[in-house]
Amino acid sequence: MDTTKKTIIVFSGDLDKLLAAFVIANGAAAMGDDVTMFFTFWGLNALRKEGVTGTGTGKSTVQKMFATMLPKTPSNAGLSRMNMGGMGARLMKKVMREQNVDSIEQMRQTAIEQEIQMIACTMSMDVMGFAKEDLIDGIEYAGVATYLGEADEANVNLFI
Amino acid sequence: MDTTKKTIIVFSGDLDKLLAAFVIANGAAAMGDDVTMFFTFWGLNALRKEGVTGTGTGKSTVQKMFATMLPKTPSNAGLSRMNMGGMGARLMKKVMREQNVDSIEQMRQTAIEQEIQMIACTMSMDVMGFAKEDLIDGIEYAGVATYLGEADEANVNLFI
Amino acid sequence: MDTTKKTIIVFSGDLDKLLAAFVIANGAAAMGDDVTMFFTFWGLNALRKEGVTGTGTGKSTVQKMFATMLPKTPSNAGLSRMNMGGMGARLMKKVMREQNVDSIEQMRQTAIEQEIQMIACTMSMDVMGFAKEDLIDGIEYAGVATYLGEADEANVNLFI
Repeated sequence: MDTTKKTIIVFSGDLDKLLAAFVIANGAAAMGDDVTMFFTFWGLNALRKEGVTGTGTGKSTVQKMFATMLPKTPSNAGLSRMNMGGMGARLMKKVMREQNVDSIEQMRQTAIEQEIQMIACTMSMDVMGFAKEDLIDGIEYAGVATYLGEADEANVNLFI
Repeated sequence: MDTTKKTIIVFSGDLDKLLAAFVIANGAAAMGDDVTMFFTFWGLNALRKEGVTGTGTGKSTVQKMFATMLPKTPSNAGLSRMNMGGMGARLMKKVMREQNVDSIEQMRQTAIEQEIQMIACTMSMDVMGFAKEDLIDGIEYAGVATYLGEADEANVNLFI
Repeated sequence: MDTTKKTIIVFSGDLDKLLAAFVIANGAAAMGDDVTMFFTFWGLNALRKEGVTGTGTGKSTVQKMFATMLPKTPSNAGLSRMNMGGMGARLMKKVMREQNVDSIEQMRQTAIEQEIQMIACTMSMDVMGFAKEDLIDGIEYAGVATYLGEADEANVNLFI
């Protein structure tokens, strides 16, 4: 089997879109591909560390406001459609358990185990008010030039 | 003219995004390309059979709830922005008729006639509560591995 | 450095997604790539001329209604999530200034200076009710066939 490369820009922090991103990424890695996930904007939520408030020192007031309003962990993410104050997301998580579909946290763990390269976009971290201590270990920090370098080596590049 | 291949993941079920997906897919097929459309999550609505309620036997309660809340056909889809309880979508369909732009159902028919490969994502069908009898004839059923195999052969891959 | 080509379909008119699109486009151009941005649907807002109402002659009533409801300039665009009646967008623009991130208008100007090819999708203009006089100078007008031709020459193609 040839090893090829895939990149995914994870812009969305919605449960359903994160699910799609991790299913594609983990599927490609399982088939032997190199995979890079580049997390920007709302997608950074998928990398949040459990129990971190995101209102630490060195942030401006506006950054703290943003950090406070964002879902605290991936499992608190809403749906991109029909979220209905969180009910849609709870329904979808219930069906995922019924159908033995992994949770986002489990998929993220699988991604780490499959050595998928996970990069947090540093410009987005500035805009959204995320510091490195807010995010999980084992990820990289870089900007758009790094993404473009990875994308140039890949045969499939998606923006989710 | 060289034949090349295109794949489109149709994640969204919004009228405007479905329109974009079918215009690109049908345009590429008209230019002689092989095209694969892989319908996941809300995008599965684009494949719904007319007059099927989606609450048939063999589904869990939660799946039935999801199926009940989804638009019944592609022509009932809303807009991704400014839907305003359906008014935005009705306005857009009115302009499409005025401007002689095909409806989603007409574009889907053109896609079938142009032999575009339309695949329903089986994992999404489980999560969203769709059974094969809910969807139109002439489509295929597969998972992410099939999508990745098609994408590896394509020179343009989009996520819509 | 090899010159390669990138295309971006800019479907969204949201502030955060426009920001992502222009950062990737300008980043690729700065690295020596040819870049084509193809603006469709809500993304056309990113090309609106300052102070144009979009309700000029030769438009149908429905087209004028659409044009009236759309944000008047890119700087009036909302966020794709947590817009909260515009407060989210104002917060993000404030953080962008604090962090010395260029505004959308500045990024668009950089794109023009870097000779990024910016194409307005003519079918979308018809559906959304945009005339050429509503949009900025220095852009091109074309349809999906032109996009597909550009995408065939590119090694990275994104839909944002």
